[in-house]
Amino acid sequence: MAVIGAGAIGGAVAESLVDGAVPGARLITVLRSSSTQDEVAAAIEAADVLVEAAGVEVAEELIPRITRAGKDVIVCSCGVFARHDNPRDIVAGGAGRVLVPAGAVGGLDVLAAAARAGTDEAALRHFTIKSPAALGVHGPLGTPREVFRGSAREAALEFPRTSNASVALALATIGLDRVEVIVVADPEVERTRHVVEWESPVGRYDMRFENAMDPDSGGRTSAITAWSVAEVLSAVAAGAGPGVVVVSAARPVETT
Amino acid sequence: MAVIGAGAIGGAVAESLVDGAVPGARLITVLRSSSTQDEVAAAIEAADVLVEAAGVEVAEELIPRITRAGKDVIVCSCGVFARHDNPRDIVAGGAGRVLVPAGAVGGLDVLAAAARAGTDEAALRHFTIKSPAALGVHGPLGTPREVFRGSAREAALEFPRTSNASVALALATIGLDRVEVIVVADPEVERTRHVVEWESPVGRYDMRFENAMDPDSGGRTSAITAWSVAEVLSAVAAGAGPGVVVVSAARPVETT
Repeated sequence: MAVIGAGAIGGAVAESLVDGAVPGARLITVLRSSSTQDEVAAAIEAADVLVEAAGVEVAEELIPRITRAGKDVIVCSCGVFARHDNPRDIVAGGAGRVLVPAGAVGGLDVLAAAARAGTDEAALRHFTIKSPAALGVHGPLGTPREVFRGSAREAALEFPRTSNASVALALATIGLDRVEVIVVADPEVERTRHVVEWESPVGRYDMRFENAMDPDSGGRTSAITAWSVAEVLSAVAAGAGPGVVVVSAARPVETT
Repeated sequence: MAVIGAGAIGGAVAESLVDGAVPGARLITVLRSSSTQDEVAAAIEAADVLVEAAGVEVAEELIPRITRAGKDVIVCSCGVFARHDNPRDIVAGGAGRVLVPAGAVGGLDVLAAAARAGTDEAALRHFTIKSPAALGVHGPLGTPREVFRGSAREAALEFPRTSNASVALALATIGLDRVEVIVVADPEVERTRHVVEWESPVGRYDMRFENAMDPDSGGRTSAITAWSVAEVLSAVAAGAGPGVVVVSAARPVETT
Protein backbone atom coordinates (compact mmCIF):
# COMPACT_ATOMS: atom_id res chain seq x y z
CA MET A 1 0.00 0.00 0.00
CA ALA A 2 0.96 3.67 -0.27
CA VAL A 3 0.78 6.45 2.29
CA ILE A 4 -0.24 9.95 1.23
CA GLY A 5 1.24 12.51 3.62
CA ALA A 6 4.49 12.53 5.58
CA GLY A 7 3.13 14.21 8.72
CA ALA A 8 2.70 12.64 12.15
CA ILE A 9 0.03 10.10 11.15
CA GLY A 10 1.44 9.26 7.73
CA GLY A 11 4.93 8.88 9.20
CA ALA A 12 3.72 6.67 12.03
CA VAL A 13 1.63 4.49 9.69
CA ALA A 14 4.59 4.05 7.33
CA GLU A 15 6.88 3.24 10.26
CA SER A 16 4.47 0.66 11.70
CA LEU A 17 4.22 -1.06 8.32
CA VAL A 18 7.99 -1.16 7.88
CA ASP A 19 8.13 -2.71 11.35
CA GLY A 20 5.71 -5.41 10.16
CA ALA A 21 2.75 -4.28 12.28
CA VAL A 22 0.39 -5.64 9.62
CA PRO A 23 1.41 -9.07 8.32
CA GLY A 24 0.99 -9.15 4.55
CA ALA A 25 0.89 -5.37 4.11
CA ARG A 26 3.82 -4.01 2.13
CA LEU A 27 4.59 -0.29 1.97
CA ILE A 28 5.36 0.85 -1.59
CA THR A 29 5.86 4.58 -1.13
CA VAL A 30 5.08 7.68 0.91
CA LEU A 31 3.78 10.61 -1.12
CA ARG A 32 4.71 14.11 0.05
CA SER A 33 3.50 17.57 -0.96
CA SER A 34 6.64 17.67 -3.10
CA SER A 35 5.63 14.52 -5.01
CA THR A 36 5.01 15.00 -8.73
CA GLN A 37 1.70 14.14 -10.45
CA ASP A 38 3.51 11.24 -12.10
CA GLU A 39 4.58 9.90 -8.69
CA VAL A 40 0.99 10.19 -7.44
CA ALA A 41 -0.36 8.40 -10.52
CA ALA A 42 2.26 5.65 -10.19
CA ALA A 43 1.39 5.12 -6.51
CA ILE A 44 -2.35 4.82 -7.26
CA GLU A 45 -1.52 2.39 -10.06
CA ALA A 46 0.78 0.23 -7.96
CA ALA A 47 -1.11 0.13 -4.64
CA ASP A 48 -4.14 -1.95 -3.66
CA VAL A 49 -4.89 0.38 -0.74
CA LEU A 50 -3.80 3.95 -0.06
CA VAL A 51 -3.79 5.75 3.28
CA GLU A 52 -4.66 9.46 3.08
CA ALA A 53 -3.16 11.53 5.89
CA ALA A 54 -2.42 14.78 4.07
CA GLY A 55 -5.30 17.08 4.98
CA VAL A 56 -8.75 17.90 3.67
CA GLU A 57 -7.63 19.64 0.46
CA VAL A 58 -5.51 16.72 -0.69
CA ALA A 59 -8.25 14.26 0.36
CA GLU A 60 -10.81 16.19 -1.71
CA GLU A 61 -8.59 15.99 -4.76
CA LEU A 62 -7.27 12.43 -4.48
CA ILE A 63 -10.16 10.34 -3.12
CA PRO A 64 -12.18 10.38 -6.38
CA ARG A 65 -9.04 9.64 -8.41
CA ILE A 66 -8.26 6.64 -6.21
CA THR A 67 -11.81 5.22 -6.08
CA ARG A 68 -12.26 5.73 -9.86
CA ALA A 69 -9.06 3.71 -10.32
CA GLY A 70 -10.81 0.94 -8.35
CA LYS A 71 -8.47 1.19 -5.38
CA ASP A 72 -9.43 1.53 -1.70
CA VAL A 73 -8.41 4.54 0.36
CA ILE A 74 -8.30 4.84 4.13
CA VAL A 75 -9.19 8.47 4.79
CA CYS A 76 -7.80 10.14 7.93
CA SER A 77 -8.76 13.71 6.99
CA CYS A 78 -12.45 12.95 7.22
CA GLY A 79 -13.32 16.61 7.59
CA VAL A 80 -13.64 16.30 3.81
CA PHE A 81 -17.03 14.61 4.28
CA ALA A 82 -18.44 17.77 5.88
CA ARG A 83 -18.25 19.44 2.46
CA HIS A 84 -20.57 16.89 0.86
CA ASP A 85 -24.29 16.36 1.48
CA ASN A 86 -23.93 12.62 0.86
CA PRO A 87 -20.68 10.85 1.86
CA ARG A 88 -21.09 8.68 -1.25
CA ASP A 89 -20.64 11.73 -3.50
CA ILE A 90 -16.93 11.64 -2.81
CA VAL A 91 -16.34 8.13 -4.18
CA ALA A 92 -17.55 9.51 -7.53
CA GLY A 93 -19.16 6.24 -8.55
CA GLY A 94 -15.80 4.47 -8.69
CA ALA A 95 -15.29 0.81 -7.79
CA GLY A 96 -12.88 1.68 -4.97
CA ARG A 97 -14.02 2.06 -1.39
CA VAL A 98 -13.41 4.81 1.15
CA LEU A 99 -12.63 3.49 4.62
CA VAL A 100 -12.94 5.78 7.63
CA PRO A 101 -11.11 4.50 10.73
CA ALA A 102 -12.27 5.18 14.29
CA GLY A 103 -9.07 7.17 14.74
CA ALA A 104 -8.62 8.58 18.23
CA VAL A 105 -11.81 7.00 19.58
CA GLY A 106 -13.54 3.63 19.40
CA GLY A 107 -16.89 1.96 19.75
CA LEU A 108 -17.92 2.41 16.12
CA ASP A 109 -18.81 -1.31 16.35
CA VAL A 110 -21.44 -1.01 19.10
CA LEU A 111 -22.63 2.42 17.94
CA ALA A 112 -23.24 1.20 14.37
CA ALA A 113 -25.16 -1.79 15.78
CA ALA A 114 -27.25 0.52 17.98
CA ALA A 115 -27.91 2.80 14.99
CA ARG A 116 -29.03 -0.22 12.96
CA ALA A 117 -31.56 -0.95 15.71
CA GLY A 118 -33.05 2.52 15.18
CA THR A 119 -32.01 6.17 15.08
CA ASP A 120 -35.29 8.09 15.54
CA GLU A 121 -34.81 8.39 19.31
CA ALA A 122 -31.02 8.22 19.25
CA ALA A 123 -28.63 10.92 20.41
CA LEU A 124 -24.83 11.02 20.17
CA ARG A 125 -22.52 13.52 21.83
CA HIS A 126 -18.77 13.76 21.37
CA PHE A 127 -16.62 15.82 23.73
CA THR A 128 -13.00 16.51 22.75
CA ILE A 129 -10.79 17.92 25.52
CA LYS A 130 -7.36 19.11 24.36
CA SER A 131 -4.65 21.49 25.50
CA PRO A 132 -5.17 25.10 24.28
CA ALA A 133 -2.00 24.81 22.14
CA ALA A 134 -3.33 21.71 20.36
CA LEU A 135 -6.49 23.66 19.52
CA GLY A 136 -4.65 26.80 18.44
CA VAL A 137 -6.28 28.68 21.35
CA HIS A 138 -3.94 31.37 22.75
CA GLY A 139 -3.95 33.97 25.48
CA PRO A 140 -4.29 33.43 29.24
CA LEU A 141 -6.45 30.44 30.08
CA GLY A 142 -6.57 29.31 33.71
CA THR A 143 -9.59 27.04 33.55
CA PRO A 144 -11.17 24.74 30.97
CA ARG A 145 -13.08 26.69 28.33
CA GLU A 146 -15.64 25.44 25.82
CA VAL A 147 -14.33 26.66 22.47
CA PHE A 148 -16.92 25.01 20.23
CA ARG A 149 -20.39 23.47 20.39
CA GLY A 150 -22.28 22.44 17.28
CA SER A 151 -22.90 19.63 14.83
CA ALA A 152 -20.16 17.28 13.62
CA ARG A 153 -20.46 18.96 10.22
CA GLU A 154 -19.90 22.42 11.71
CA ALA A 155 -17.03 21.10 13.83
CA ALA A 156 -15.34 19.58 10.78
CA LEU A 157 -15.62 22.85 8.86
CA GLU A 158 -14.30 24.92 11.78
CA PHE A 159 -11.69 22.51 13.26
CA PRO A 160 -10.78 20.18 10.38
CA ARG A 161 -7.70 18.82 12.18
CA THR A 162 -9.55 18.16 15.43
CA SER A 163 -12.81 16.72 14.14
CA ASN A 164 -11.85 13.46 12.44
CA ALA A 165 -13.20 11.33 15.27
CA SER A 166 -16.45 13.32 15.32
CA VAL A 167 -16.94 12.70 11.60
CA ALA A 168 -16.17 8.98 11.90
CA LEU A 169 -18.67 8.66 14.78
CA ALA A 170 -21.30 10.56 12.76
CA LEU A 171 -20.83 8.55 9.56
CA ALA A 172 -21.14 5.32 11.56
CA THR A 173 -24.39 6.36 13.25
CA ILE A 174 -26.83 9.28 12.85
CA GLY A 175 -24.99 11.51 10.41
CA LEU A 176 -22.99 14.73 10.46
CA ASP A 177 -25.91 17.03 11.23
CA ARG A 178 -27.33 15.18 14.23
CA VAL A 179 -24.15 14.39 16.20
CA GLU A 180 -23.41 17.08 18.80
CA VAL A 181 -19.75 17.99 19.20
CA ILE A 182 -18.27 19.92 22.13
CA VAL A 183 -14.61 20.99 22.03
CA VAL A 184 -12.99 22.07 25.30
CA ALA A 185 -9.59 23.74 25.76
CA ASP A 186 -8.13 22.65 29.10
CA PRO A 187 -4.71 23.91 30.24
CA GLU A 188 -4.48 20.99 32.68
CA VAL A 189 -4.77 18.38 29.92
CA GLU A 190 -1.61 16.52 28.97
CA ARG A 191 -3.23 13.63 27.11
CA THR A 192 -6.12 14.37 24.74
CA ARG A 193 -9.43 13.11 26.08
CA HIS A 194 -12.54 12.09 24.18
CA VAL A 195 -15.92 11.33 25.71
CA VAL A 196 -18.59 9.67 23.57
CA GLU A 197 -22.16 9.47 24.89
CA TRP A 198 -24.87 7.50 23.08
CA GLU A 199 -28.48 7.08 24.11
CA SER A 200 -31.21 5.18 22.27
CA PRO A 201 -33.85 2.56 23.17
CA VAL A 202 -31.32 -0.32 22.91
CA GLY A 203 -28.82 1.19 25.32
CA ARG A 204 -26.86 3.98 26.93
CA TYR A 205 -23.14 3.99 26.21
CA ASP A 206 -20.53 6.21 27.85
CA MET A 207 -17.02 5.77 26.48
CA ARG A 208 -13.97 7.68 27.69
CA PHE A 209 -10.70 7.68 25.78
CA GLU A 210 -7.50 9.20 27.12
CA ASN A 211 -4.76 8.96 24.51
CA ALA A 212 -1.00 9.33 24.66
CA MET A 213 0.09 11.84 22.06
CA ASP A 214 2.26 11.16 19.03
CA PRO A 215 5.54 12.96 19.87
CA ASP A 216 5.86 14.16 16.26
CA SER A 217 2.46 15.86 16.22
CA GLY A 218 2.96 18.85 18.53
CA GLY A 219 0.27 17.52 20.85
CA ARG A 220 -2.30 17.44 18.04
CA THR A 221 -2.44 13.76 17.17
CA SER A 222 -3.07 10.72 19.36
CA ALA A 223 -0.63 7.84 18.92
CA ILE A 224 -3.55 5.39 18.67
CA THR A 225 -4.67 6.97 15.37
CA ALA A 226 -1.89 5.37 13.31
CA TRP A 227 -2.59 2.00 14.97
CA SER A 228 -6.25 2.31 14.09
CA VAL A 229 -5.20 2.75 10.44
CA ALA A 230 -3.00 -0.36 10.73
CA GLU A 231 -6.01 -2.17 12.19
CA VAL A 232 -8.15 -1.19 9.20
CA LEU A 233 -5.42 -2.34 6.77
CA SER A 234 -5.39 -5.68 8.53
CA ALA A 235 -9.20 -5.84 8.42
CA VAL A 236 -9.28 -5.17 4.66
CA ALA A 237 -6.90 -8.12 4.18
CA ALA A 238 -9.03 -10.31 6.48
CA GLY A 239 -12.28 -9.27 4.79
CA ALA A 240 -13.89 -8.11 8.06
CA GLY A 241 -13.14 -6.02 11.12
CA PRO A 242 -11.99 -4.16 13.10
CA GLY A 243 -14.84 -4.49 15.57
CA VAL A 244 -15.13 -8.23 15.01
CA VAL A 245 -12.59 -10.94 15.75
CA VAL A 246 -11.73 -12.94 12.63
CA VAL A 247 -10.35 -16.40 13.34
CA SER A 248 -9.04 -18.00 10.18
CA ALA A 249 -6.61 -20.75 9.18
CA ALA A 250 -5.55 -18.71 6.15
CA ARG A 251 -2.20 -16.95 6.12
CA PRO A 252 -2.51 -13.21 5.39
CA VAL A 253 -2.53 -12.41 1.69
CA GLU A 254 0.02 -9.79 0.69
CA THR A 255 -1.48 -6.33 0.22
CA THR A 256 0.60 -3.78 -1.64
CA MET B 1 -27.55 -17.04 5.47
CA ALA B 2 -28.76 -19.54 8.04
CA VAL B 3 -29.31 -19.14 11.77
CA ILE B 4 -28.43 -21.99 14.14
CA GLY B 5 -30.56 -21.75 17.28
CA ALA B 6 -34.10 -20.50 17.82
CA GLY B 7 -33.51 -18.86 21.21
CA ALA B 8 -33.57 -15.14 22.02
CA ILE B 9 -30.54 -14.19 19.91
CA GLY B 10 -31.22 -16.56 17.01
CA GLY B 11 -34.85 -15.48 16.93
CA ALA B 12 -33.99 -11.78 17.00
CA VAL B 13 -31.32 -12.16 14.31
CA ALA B 14 -33.75 -14.06 12.05
CA GLU B 15 -36.44 -11.44 12.67
CA SER B 16 -34.11 -8.54 11.89
CA LEU B 17 -33.08 -10.20 8.61
CA VAL B 18 -36.68 -10.84 7.60
CA ASP B 19 -37.32 -7.16 8.31
CA GLY B 20 -34.48 -6.28 5.92
CA ALA B 21 -32.08 -4.97 8.58
CA VAL B 22 -29.13 -6.07 6.43
CA PRO B 23 -29.59 -5.13 2.76
CA GLY B 24 -28.50 -8.06 0.59
CA ALA B 25 -28.65 -10.66 3.38
CA ARG B 26 -31.28 -13.32 2.78
CA LEU B 27 -32.35 -15.75 5.52
CA ILE B 28 -32.56 -19.34 4.25
CA THR B 29 -33.47 -21.24 7.39
CA VAL B 30 -33.38 -21.39 11.17
CA LEU B 31 -31.99 -24.64 12.58
CA ARG B 32 -33.44 -25.88 15.88
CA SER B 33 -32.39 -28.63 18.26
CA SER B 34 -35.07 -30.71 16.53
CA SER B 35 -33.44 -30.26 13.10
CA THR B 36 -32.20 -33.46 11.47
CA GLN B 37 -28.59 -34.02 10.40
CA ASP B 38 -29.79 -33.74 6.80
CA GLU B 39 -31.32 -30.34 7.49
CA VAL B 40 -28.06 -29.17 9.12
CA ALA B 41 -26.01 -30.43 6.17
CA ALA B 42 -28.39 -28.77 3.69
CA ALA B 43 -28.17 -25.44 5.53
CA ILE B 44 -24.35 -25.52 5.54
CA GLU B 45 -24.41 -26.38 1.84
CA ALA B 46 -26.85 -23.61 0.92
CA ALA B 47 -25.60 -20.73 3.08
CA ASP B 48 -22.63 -18.42 2.55
CA VAL B 49 -22.65 -17.42 6.21
CA LEU B 50 -24.17 -19.11 9.25
CA VAL B 51 -24.95 -17.53 12.61
CA GLU B 52 -24.39 -19.82 15.62
CA ALA B 53 -26.58 -18.95 18.61
CA ALA B 54 -27.27 -22.40 20.01
CA GLY B 55 -24.83 -22.80 22.90
CA VAL B 56 -21.29 -24.02 23.43
CA GLU B 57 -21.96 -27.71 22.76
CA VAL B 58 -23.56 -27.07 19.37
CA ALA B 59 -20.84 -24.53 18.51
CA GLU B 60 -18.13 -27.08 19.34
CA GLU B 61 -19.72 -29.61 17.01
CA LEU B 62 -20.74 -27.38 14.10
CA ILE B 63 -17.97 -24.78 13.74
CA PRO B 64 -15.39 -27.21 12.27
CA ARG B 65 -18.02 -28.69 9.94
CA ILE B 66 -18.92 -25.22 8.68
CA THR B 67 -15.35 -23.93 8.25
CA ARG B 68 -14.24 -27.19 6.58
CA ALA B 69 -17.11 -26.66 4.12
CA GLY B 70 -15.52 -23.29 3.35
CA LYS B 71 -18.37 -21.29 4.85
CA ASP B 72 -18.13 -18.47 7.40
CA VAL B 73 -19.78 -18.71 10.80
CA ILE B 74 -20.60 -15.88 13.20
CA VAL B 75 -20.19 -17.43 16.65
CA CYS B 76 -22.28 -16.05 19.52
CA SER B 77 -21.50 -18.86 22.00
CA CYS B 78 -17.88 -17.86 22.20
CA GLY B 79 -17.40 -19.68 25.49
CA VAL B 80 -16.37 -22.49 23.12
CA PHE B 81 -12.99 -20.78 22.67
CA ALA B 82 -12.19 -21.26 26.36
CA ARG B 83 -11.90 -25.00 25.70
CA HIS B 84 -9.10 -24.55 23.15
CA ASP B 85 -5.54 -23.39 23.77
CA ASN B 86 -5.42 -21.70 20.37
CA PRO B 87 -8.61 -20.14 18.95
CA ARG B 88 -7.46 -21.28 15.50
CA ASP B 89 -7.75 -24.93 16.55
CA ILE B 90 -11.52 -24.68 16.20
CA VAL B 91 -11.51 -23.76 12.50
CA ALA B 92 -9.84 -27.12 11.89
CA GLY B 93 -7.78 -25.85 8.98
CA GLY B 94 -10.88 -25.21 6.89
CA ALA B 95 -11.22 -22.35 4.40
CA GLY B 96 -14.17 -20.83 6.27
CA ARG B 97 -13.75 -18.10 8.86
CA VAL B 98 -15.06 -17.78 12.39
CA LEU B 99 -16.34 -14.27 13.18
CA VAL B 100 -16.79 -13.22 16.80
CA PRO B 101 -19.04 -10.14 17.24
CA ALA B 102 -18.62 -7.60 20.04
CA GLY B 103 -22.02 -8.72 21.30
CA ALA B 104 -23.22 -6.82 24.34
CA VAL B 105 -20.19 -4.52 24.45
CA GLY B 106 -18.18 -2.48 21.98
CA GLY B 107 -14.80 -0.89 21.46
CA LEU B 108 -13.17 -3.97 19.92
CA ASP B 109 -12.00 -1.51 17.24
CA VAL B 110 -9.95 0.76 19.52
CA LEU B 111 -8.89 -2.10 21.81
CA ALA B 112 -7.53 -4.16 18.90
CA ALA B 113 -5.63 -1.09 17.68
CA ALA B 114 -4.20 -0.50 21.16
CA ALA B 115 -3.21 -4.19 21.38
CA ARG B 116 -1.47 -3.91 18.00
CA ALA B 117 0.57 -1.04 19.47
CA GLY B 118 1.80 -3.39 22.20
CA THR B 119 0.46 -5.75 24.86
CA ASP B 120 3.42 -6.22 27.25
CA GLU B 121 2.24 -3.43 29.57
CA ALA B 122 -1.44 -3.74 28.72
CA ALA B 123 -4.24 -4.64 31.12
CA LEU B 124 -7.93 -5.24 30.36
CA ARG B 125 -10.72 -5.62 32.90
CA HIS B 126 -14.32 -6.50 32.14
CA PHE B 127 -17.06 -6.03 34.75
CA THR B 128 -20.48 -7.55 34.08
CA ILE B 129 -23.27 -6.41 36.39
CA LYS B 130 -26.51 -8.35 36.05
CA SER B 131 -29.61 -9.12 38.10
CA PRO B 132 -29.22 -12.20 40.37
CA ALA B 133 -31.89 -14.04 38.32
CA ALA B 134 -29.99 -13.47 35.08
CA LEU B 135 -26.91 -15.00 36.73
CA GLY B 136 -28.81 -17.90 38.27
CA VAL B 137 -27.94 -16.59 41.74
CA HIS B 138 -30.73 -17.30 44.23
CA GLY B 139 -31.47 -16.68 47.89
CA PRO B 140 -31.76 -13.34 49.69
CA LEU B 141 -29.52 -10.67 48.22
CA GLY B 142 -29.95 -7.09 49.39
CA THR B 143 -26.78 -5.56 48.08
CA PRO B 144 -24.55 -6.08 45.03
CA ARG B 145 -22.37 -9.17 45.41
CA GLU B 146 -19.28 -10.19 43.46
CA VAL B 147 -20.06 -13.71 42.26
CA PHE B 148 -16.96 -14.26 40.14
CA ARG B 149 -13.45 -12.91 39.62
CA GLY B 150 -10.95 -14.59 37.35
CA SER B 151 -9.64 -14.81 33.81
CA ALA B 152 -11.88 -14.62 30.73
CA ARG B 153 -11.13 -18.31 30.18
CA GLU B 154 -12.25 -19.26 33.70
CA ALA B 155 -15.33 -17.03 33.34
CA ALA B 156 -16.28 -18.71 30.06
CA LEU B 157 -15.96 -22.18 31.61
CA GLU B 158 -17.98 -21.19 34.71
CA PHE B 159 -20.58 -18.82 33.16
CA PRO B 160 -20.72 -19.82 29.47
CA ARG B 161 -23.94 -17.87 28.85
CA THR B 162 -22.68 -14.70 30.54
CA SER B 163 -19.13 -14.56 29.25
CA ASN B 164 -19.47 -14.06 25.51
CA ALA B 165 -18.46 -10.40 25.68
CA SER B 166 -15.47 -11.25 27.89
CA VAL B 167 -14.25 -13.79 25.35
CA ALA B 168 -14.72 -11.41 22.41
CA LEU B 169 -12.76 -8.71 24.27
CA ALA B 170 -10.01 -11.20 25.09
CA LEU B 171 -9.69 -12.61 21.57
CA ALA B 172 -9.46 -9.04 20.20
CA THR B 173 -6.68 -8.03 22.60
CA ILE B 174 -4.49 -9.85 25.14
CA GLY B 175 -6.05 -13.30 25.17
CA LEU B 176 -8.31 -15.36 27.41
CA ASP B 177 -5.80 -15.87 30.21
CA ARG B 178 -4.78 -12.22 30.73
CA VAL B 179 -8.18 -10.48 30.65
CA GLU B 180 -9.62 -10.09 34.17
CA VAL B 181 -13.37 -10.66 34.46
CA ILE B 182 -15.51 -9.60 37.41
CA VAL B 183 -19.17 -10.64 37.54
CA VAL B 184 -21.46 -8.84 39.99
CA ALA B 185 -25.04 -9.78 40.95
CA ASP B 186 -26.97 -6.60 41.75
CA PRO B 187 -30.65 -6.81 42.78
CA GLU B 188 -31.06 -3.12 41.80
CA VAL B 189 -30.02 -3.74 38.19
CA GLU B 190 -32.77 -3.67 35.58
CA ARG B 191 -30.57 -3.26 32.49
CA THR B 192 -27.39 -5.33 32.25
CA ARG B 193 -24.28 -3.19 32.63
CA HIS B 194 -20.79 -3.82 31.28
CA VAL B 195 -17.68 -1.84 32.18
CA VAL B 196 -14.53 -2.30 30.11
CA GLU B 197 -11.25 -0.81 31.35
CA TRP B 198 -8.10 -0.82 29.22
CA GLU B 199 -4.71 0.57 30.14
CA SER B 200 -1.52 0.50 28.06
CA PRO B 201 1.13 3.03 26.97
CA VAL B 202 -1.03 4.31 24.07
CA GLY B 203 -4.04 5.08 26.19
CA ARG B 204 -6.53 4.54 28.99
CA TYR B 205 -10.03 3.60 27.92
CA ASP B 206 -13.08 3.35 30.16
CA MET B 207 -16.24 2.19 28.40
CA ARG B 208 -19.62 1.73 30.06
CA PHE B 209 -22.47 -0.08 28.36
CA GLU B 210 -25.99 -0.21 29.75
CA ASN B 211 -28.17 -2.41 27.58
CA ALA B 212 -31.92 -2.85 27.27
CA MET B 213 -32.76 -6.53 27.57
CA ASP B 214 -34.25 -8.73 24.87
CA PRO B 215 -37.78 -9.43 26.20
CA ASP B 216 -37.56 -13.08 25.03
CA SER B 217 -34.39 -13.81 26.98
CA GLY B 218 -35.56 -13.78 30.59
CA GLY B 219 -33.22 -10.90 31.37
CA ARG B 220 -30.19 -12.85 30.14
CA THR B 221 -29.54 -11.35 26.72
CA SER B 222 -29.06 -7.72 25.68
CA ALA B 223 -31.11 -6.58 22.69
CA ILE B 224 -27.98 -5.04 21.13
CA THR B 225 -26.42 -8.52 20.70
CA ALA B 226 -28.63 -9.47 17.74
CA TRP B 227 -27.93 -6.09 16.13
CA SER B 228 -24.21 -6.61 16.54
CA VAL B 229 -24.61 -9.89 14.60
CA ALA B 230 -26.53 -8.01 11.88
CA GLU B 231 -23.68 -5.48 11.84
CA VAL B 232 -21.12 -8.26 11.29
CA LEU B 233 -23.23 -9.77 8.48
CA SER B 234 -23.26 -6.36 6.83
CA ALA B 235 -19.50 -6.00 7.36
CA VAL B 236 -18.80 -9.37 5.74
CA ALA B 237 -20.77 -8.23 2.67
CA ALA B 238 -18.90 -4.88 2.63
CA GLY B 239 -15.51 -6.56 3.12
CA ALA B 240 -14.65 -4.50 6.22
CA GLY B 241 -16.14 -3.31 9.49
CA PRO B 242 -18.11 -2.89 11.71
CA GLY B 243 -15.37 -0.82 13.42
CA VAL B 244 -14.69 1.20 10.27
CA VAL B 245 -17.08 3.18 8.07
CA VAL B 246 -17.17 1.82 4.53
CA VAL B 247 -18.32 4.32 1.92
CA SER B 248 -18.87 2.65 -1.42
CA ALA B 249 -20.81 3.26 -4.60
CA ALA B 250 -21.49 -0.47 -4.90
CA ARG B 251 -24.94 -1.84 -4.10
CA PRO B 252 -24.85 -4.62 -1.50
CA VAL B 253 -24.21 -8.06 -2.97
CA GLU B 254 -26.78 -10.68 -1.94
CA THR B 255 -25.54 -12.96 0.82
CA THR B 256 -27.45 -16.16 1.41
